[in-house]
Amino acid sequence: MIAEQMKGFVKNSSAIRAMFEEGKKLAAVYGAENVYDFSLGNPNVPAPEKVRKEAVRMLAEDDPVVLHGYMNNSGYEEVREKISNFLNKTYGTNFRKENILMTVGAAGGLNVILKTLLNPGDEVIVFAPYFGEYRSYAANYGGVLVEVPPNTTDFQPDLVSFEKLISPKTKAVIVNTPNNPTGVIYSEKTIRAMADIMRSKQQEYGTDICLISDEPYRELAYDGAEVPYLTKYYENTVVGYSFSKSLSLPGERIGYLVIPDEMKDSGDVIAAANVANRILGFVNAPSLFQKVVAECLEEKTDLEYYNRNRKTLYHGLTEVGYECVRPEGAFYLFVKSPVEDEKVFCEAAKKHRILIVPGNSFGCPGYVRIAYCVSYETIVNALPGFREVIRELKD
Amino acid sequence: MIAEQMKGFVKNSSAIRAMFEEGKKLAAVYGAENVYDFSLGNPNVPAPEKVRKEAVRMLAEDDPVVLHGYMNNSGYEEVREKISNFLNKTYGTNFRKENILMTVGAAGGLNVILKTLLNPGDEVIVFAPYFGEYRSYAANYGGVLVEVPPNTTDFQPDLVSFEKLISPKTKAVIVNTPNNPTGVIYSEKTIRAMADIMRSKQQEYGTDICLISDEPYRELAYDGAEVPYLTKYYENTVVGYSFSKSLSLPGERIGYLVIPDEMKDSGDVIAAANVANRILGFVNAPSLFQKVVAECLEEKTDLEYYNRNRKTLYHGLTEVGYECVRPEGAFYLFVKSPVEDEKVFCEAAKKHRILIVPGNSFGCPGYVRIAYCVSYETIVNALPGFREVIRELKD
Repeated sequence: MIAEQMKGFVKNSSAIRAMFEEGKKLAAVYGAENVYDFSLGNPNVPAPEKVRKEAVRMLAEDDPVVLHGYMNNSGYEEVREKISNFLNKTYGTNFRKENILMTVGAAGGLNVILKTLLNPGDEVIVFAPYFGEYRSYAANYGGVLVEVPPNTTDFQPDLVSFEKLISPKTKAVIVNTPNNPTGVIYSEKTIRAMADIMRSKQQEYGTDICLISDEPYRELAYDGAEVPYLTKYYENTVVGYSFSKSLSLPGERIGYLVIPDEMKDSGDVIAAANVANRILGFVNAPSLFQKVVAECLEEKTDLEYYNRNRKTLYHGLTEVGYECVRPEGAFYLFVKSPVEDEKVFCEAAKKHRILIVPGNSFGCPGYVRIAYCVSYETIVNALPGFREVIRELKD
Repeated sequence: MIAEQMKGFVKNSSAIRAMFEEGKKLAAVYGAENVYDFSLGNPNVPAPEKVRKEAVRMLAEDDPVVLHGYMNNSGYEEVREKISNFLNKTYGTNFRKENILMTVGAAGGLNVILKTLLNPGDEVIVFAPYFGEYRSYAANYGGVLVEVPPNTTDFQPDLVSFEKLISPKTKAVIVNTPNNPTGVIYSEKTIRAMADIMRSKQQEYGTDICLISDEPYRELAYDGAEVPYLTKYYENTVVGYSFSKSLSLPGERIGYLVIPDEMKDSGDVIAAANVANRILGFVNAPSLFQKVVAECLEEKTDLEYYNRNRKTLYHGLTEVGYECVRPEGAFYLFVKSPVEDEKVFCEAAKKHRILIVPGNSFGCPGYVRIAYCVSYETIVNALPGFREVIRELKD
């Protein structure tokens, strides 16, 4: 009954399901508190109190026909106005409400902009390690993913390989900074160099190359690290933002796209993205939460909670011999497997009731992703197990 | 910059935009209360009070990490359990929670099931007049829309033409009952005959044909009219439901798919739909409203408000000579244009500050759609204009 393309996905989803079931089985045997699940990017810090307050206030005061009603596919005008003002104040940009399109999370936003841009056969460049879903997002519109191999020294993009991989078919480049899975922030120097390469390739080939910045982790930067705002460095930049992590609202599916006036054919891109949002079946971003996030733009998640986790885990692991680039953002550690095949590492960790994700899923075998958006106690209690695992594997 | 496929859409969206802008201009000149906008299917009846109460209670009592968090892509288990129980109680079905997939409205659900089923080149049959977005939904996955011509006698599907149009490439048939734009409910007799035709064609061609029932208007049936539950008549049926109209929550994007066990390869279809929900970027239906609708399954919108509108408009129009099949459901009247080209009718109506949609948008020229989900006053005040228009056009 199902489509050919979906058959592989179903097989793969059975594997994920099996892993999930195994985790549940472990929890049933040993108790949930004795299973250390570092496999999911689900924030464990609650949404700021203001989210609750604003939602309750709106439900009490606002006309339900407006609060829960249809609006323009791009979202409520006053919401988009507030977001553009906030961005302009924070990053010194010059956006108008017309540059903002409210989306069903960043995943919805990325699908909207890829539908807007891609002709079948167009190439989409990503930098390994990368969020594995990009492959499906590009494939949904006939796009072909092109991977730049990882630079495992510091996990900044390998720009020499990048330049070589840009072809006349390159339509988009996706970056994700702070990065999932490495936690690395792409430096201003990196961004400037990337922009120069893309500009010169556009000229060489007479093409348009869109830089898509996937930014669910923008607000999760530690020690005052700066995350460059990419529209300022390269004209053809589209930003995909999400409130999933910044306000701990992943289940509410709320985010936005920024399509700047500086972008080539920006009027057409905005109009087409609007249509794509509708015909892909999103129609509009959820209405109540559009209005809620517009009132919570200055709110921050409890960054210190994640920061304590980050430091404790990073120190705890490196102390006993694990190798890892110190992450500046997001809530992931990307750790080198003590043995070549990281799946062996993952299996060994599972024997200590520790669940982690093989780097293979991110186009970077030999590494594992450890999501530290968990309770502090989980980290403290898992460290002895991590110590045992490296001892076992190195023997 | 934008994809070839999107260019036509942008042109078309400019036309819609122009219509919308014209409406705004009329409102600016004559005052909003003197413009009679029957063009949108946006419920004007507020959501039931229980929606507000439950949302406020959950925001006050529930753990925000769960309330706004990720869950399985198919939705919260207890929500799916409640929905399956409600359906079983109401329609005598035998669904389990595994048969329910929470979606971003019915539009999201239809995209998910079409992504799940369609191979490029597969045909999707629709019955004119039909909701125009089906064309884009099918095209998103390489599907080709095949239109069964309208049966303008009573707007039940023309089953003789239907049978002839089923080919070995037919993968899906979309029905929408109560129907947008006609308000007609497909009778049990119609459904039985359709099911027989599809079964015999499946056998003849050795293919699987999925019946997709798009049901945003299921609860909007007047005078106690029954709306058959289609999974009971044909095995390979998938239901796409939405709470947009039944609970007046169109902006919140909340609905579900039903994929019954009776369906061929149902396990694969469920697994693939789950993956499709994720990779299309929906990820999951908005979390708070999943929980809210699960508590409001027994709630009804104020059907009497729509019913008064329906009767007033139907009588008001037929009295002065308009021809129209009396609608049994939804909140639309599908009226025969007094002149052959319905765009002339729409233009004439606009001169009386009445906005209506040409039937051409629904694959049925010569008719117009009038959405009566407006205030009662709008209807009363627009009737003299409608009377003038038919007089002018018939002269």
